[in-house]
Amino acid sequence: MVEKDDSKVFIGKKRAMDYVMAAMIVLSKEPVRILARGRSISRAVDVAEILRNKFFKGSEYGEILISTETFNNTDGTNSNVSSIEIELIPPKK
Amino acid sequence: MVEKDDSKVFIGKKRAMDYVMAAMIVLSKEPVRILARGRSISRAVDVAEILRNKFFKGSEYGEILISTETFNNTDGTNSNVSSIEIELIPPKK
Repeated sequence: MVEKDDSKVFIGKKRAMDYVMAAMIVLSKEPVRILARGRSISRAVDVAEILRNKFFKGSEYGEILISTETFNNTDGTNSNVSSIEIELIPPKK
Repeated sequence: MVEKDDSKVFIGKKRAMDYVMAAMIVLSKEPVRILARGRSISRAVDVAEILRNKFFKGSEYGEILISTETFNNTDGTNSNVSSIEIELIPPKK
């Protein structure tokens, strides 16, 4: 998830609509991958559904991947956080 | 999502581990479907990953469905909420 890739939109703590806008720019030319970790996963699903139901009707889901990322904490322990990657494919013109 | 089905676990606001236990009972004999709406979607992903990485290693994801449910509010307006359904298939014995 570290690589820079213009077709990926990483969901953080801003309003869903901000990410919808970013994803629309990608979707207008190619499939977009919507990525999120932890509590932001719900927002990622919201963003995908807003796109699919409102702004890019006829879009379809591609791969939906669920995994776990492990972080090393400064105190030597590890933390696990769930992540999701949702591919959304724009309608054929 | 209203039908009663023993192979479904509906994720609410309790701790993830409570749902992990419920899902383990299903997974010990058949695939489980983990369902959640709105903010609980993140927890559903956590539950699935805890099962897959800890208690049922070798489990694989089946269908992962994302959709939107519409509610009629008492004041006549509608509300939309995103939902997810995650199928988890136990390892072959």
